[in-house]
Amino acid sequence: MQNFVFYNPTKILFGRNTISSIGPETAAWGSHALLVYGKSSIKQSGLYEQVTSSLQAAEVEITDHGGVFSNPLLSHVQTGIEKVKQNDIDVIVAVGGGSVIDSAKAISAGALVEHDVWKFFSGKKSIKKTLPLTTVLTLAAAGSEMNSGMVITNDSTREKFGFGHQMLHPKTSILDPEITYTVPPDYTAYGAVDAIAHVLEFYMTASDPETPVQDRIMEGLIENAITACNRCLENPTDYNGRANLMWTSTLALNGLTAAGLGRVGFPMHMIEHSLSALYDIPHGAGLSIVIPGWLKWFSKTHPARIASLGKRIFPSADIEEDSDELVATRTITILHNWFGRVNSPTSLEEVDIPQSDIPRIAENALALAKVWRLTNYTAETIEEILHLCR
Amino acid sequence: MQNFVFYNPTKILFGRNTISSIGPETAAWGSHALLVYGKSSIKQSGLYEQVTSSLQAAEVEITDHGGVFSNPLLSHVQTGIEKVKQNDIDVIVAVGGGSVIDSAKAISAGALVEHDVWKFFSGKKSIKKTLPLTTVLTLAAAGSEMNSGMVITNDSTREKFGFGHQMLHPKTSILDPEITYTVPPDYTAYGAVDAIAHVLEFYMTASDPETPVQDRIMEGLIENAITACNRCLENPTDYNGRANLMWTSTLALNGLTAAGLGRVGFPMHMIEHSLSALYDIPHGAGLSIVIPGWLKWFSKTHPARIASLGKRIFPSADIEEDSDELVATRTITILHNWFGRVNSPTSLEEVDIPQSDIPRIAENALALAKVWRLTNYTAETIEEILHLCR
Repeated sequence: MQNFVFYNPTKILFGRNTISSIGPETAAWGSHALLVYGKSSIKQSGLYEQVTSSLQAAEVEITDHGGVFSNPLLSHVQTGIEKVKQNDIDVIVAVGGGSVIDSAKAISAGALVEHDVWKFFSGKKSIKKTLPLTTVLTLAAAGSEMNSGMVITNDSTREKFGFGHQMLHPKTSILDPEITYTVPPDYTAYGAVDAIAHVLEFYMTASDPETPVQDRIMEGLIENAITACNRCLENPTDYNGRANLMWTSTLALNGLTAAGLGRVGFPMHMIEHSLSALYDIPHGAGLSIVIPGWLKWFSKTHPARIASLGKRIFPSADIEEDSDELVATRTITILHNWFGRVNSPTSLEEVDIPQSDIPRIAENALALAKVWRLTNYTAETIEEILHLCR
Repeated sequence: MQNFVFYNPTKILFGRNTISSIGPETAAWGSHALLVYGKSSIKQSGLYEQVTSSLQAAEVEITDHGGVFSNPLLSHVQTGIEKVKQNDIDVIVAVGGGSVIDSAKAISAGALVEHDVWKFFSGKKSIKKTLPLTTVLTLAAAGSEMNSGMVITNDSTREKFGFGHQMLHPKTSILDPEITYTVPPDYTAYGAVDAIAHVLEFYMTASDPETPVQDRIMEGLIENAITACNRCLENPTDYNGRANLMWTSTLALNGLTAAGLGRVGFPMHMIEHSLSALYDIPHGAGLSIVIPGWLKWFSKTHPARIASLGKRIFPSADIEEDSDELVATRTITILHNWFGRVNSPTSLEEVDIPQSDIPRIAENALALAKVWRLTNYTAETIEEILHLCR
């Protein structure tokens, strides 16, 4: 096991009827909130009313900042920062999924500096302080509700970059599985794929193989993401299906799985970010395209690691004492087929990206590979992986 | 899954060469520390010197408070509280295992009130504030380094009671596996047993069966406690063995495993506390006596739950499609035999407690059962379980 620091001070309120706590949890940190959210669906569902009532009852003034897109945009973050600066706002409330929470995090950091917030993402500036942030989660997927990372797309340059800092941890996140009853099947599946991807990135790229504690946790999370997602697709109002998917996706990227693994990378995300930046496809959909391709490429050099996952969670991957290569191939096929069964795309073709675009995607991805210091990924490597995404 | 609040703000510094951080981590919270520790072994090993040098370099004044016993005593906590009050001490530093950290927690709470600290344990007073606490862990066992609980023995009444409160979380805990190289085989095993017991208590007493996320984590922790302990006994300076045992025992009781399980109990601890309070045997040794007995008693009504654990982590427990009863029995036997293999006692007889003492032990345990609201445990039930501890 490698040395690590684990520090996760986000308070999680999990379960039914927890939304009404957003008022007091926010009032503990400020009296004027920027309320960040996405589409108007939270108004139709009544969630907007629940949140604003609770904030008002706790005497928190509200400035509205709706309209966050999936693959959230820098320009919208910049508008939010202006609102905070002009209105003496002292706390941020995010009501949404990862895109909304990431936007809120970027606003919480950008509102306290004079320079453009993008400089955090491009690595030119570091975060010194942030405004406090509370969240109400509406989608089991990104894990942003309990971590210190954020991903934003620069709409001028079409770069989708991520950045992390301890001070970006939300103070409190409210996770009510019932809110996700209305998440449609496609986004339910994309969320599960995202959680699986977060675990796979660490599991596959860990620089230290002596981490059985973390391995068992990661294997359990992947298994649960699959079984819980299946339950939610079967019955969208299955409380325990929704609850298990929600807690799985939170734990998948809250620092616990990576602690002790040493240096880990996000190569699948690195390539996927280019797909969603260039073609605006949902993040989870892009990931289910990239994951099998990347795993096929990785299995050429590291079949044992993929096989170890399959042996633990896919009994049918290891029928008799097979070679690591064979078990790895079956593991990838099982995952690939499951993506297909939950209607998450598994090839560039399915989302109408022509093979001729591969060099352009690789070039875009390479920029992020440099920022994330994925130094062993050349344009040729990325092209090779993209050719396996079929 | 049941509603829960998860909040664990303890910062963990894990790995080699981390002890020297105790100075700056402590100086962030105060300038005069009460240094709580146990026996003089930390002076022989050089750890005392490492810690005090780091504190002095960070300009933290030190008042010494060594001499904590295993099964820590209220009287020693009370002396520590007096020292804090008389010397304007503003931060507590614990260097030791669970007994030392629990004593430090009790001092951190008791130093800020006028009434006796035992009133927290007897349920007569609640904690409003605590002094900040930093820790250097020397034993993989109790999990106190990353949780909000503490257990103290009242030396006048021979009651060993536990109490928990959010404010008892250490600010920072330093976990250097190399410090545990010198832990002798018996205490290495007792520590692993303690971690296993913490997981088993929750796994077996969870009031909600729909917790696959937590179940997979708990099963992984039990499996790891066993395999890591075996490695440490084989080679006491196996870094990864020590590291995996240390992180396993921390995660076994940091709130993560219990979150979402609903009401859980500590019935095995309830009975063990009487063994160590009355006969002063090590906590882990008492637990390896109680666990198989309690499981045999529990398997009469809940064989499926025990079988589900065995099916996941002991392949030999489920040879062919056996009944839950049979798999549960095999699971208990495997665990019982493993305790024996690592020389942790598995019967009252082994620690020279006569069967005729059982009524007296049950009576003592019943007092804690009342405080912990284990309402379905009568003296007869406890006696029945103790008769199975053989």
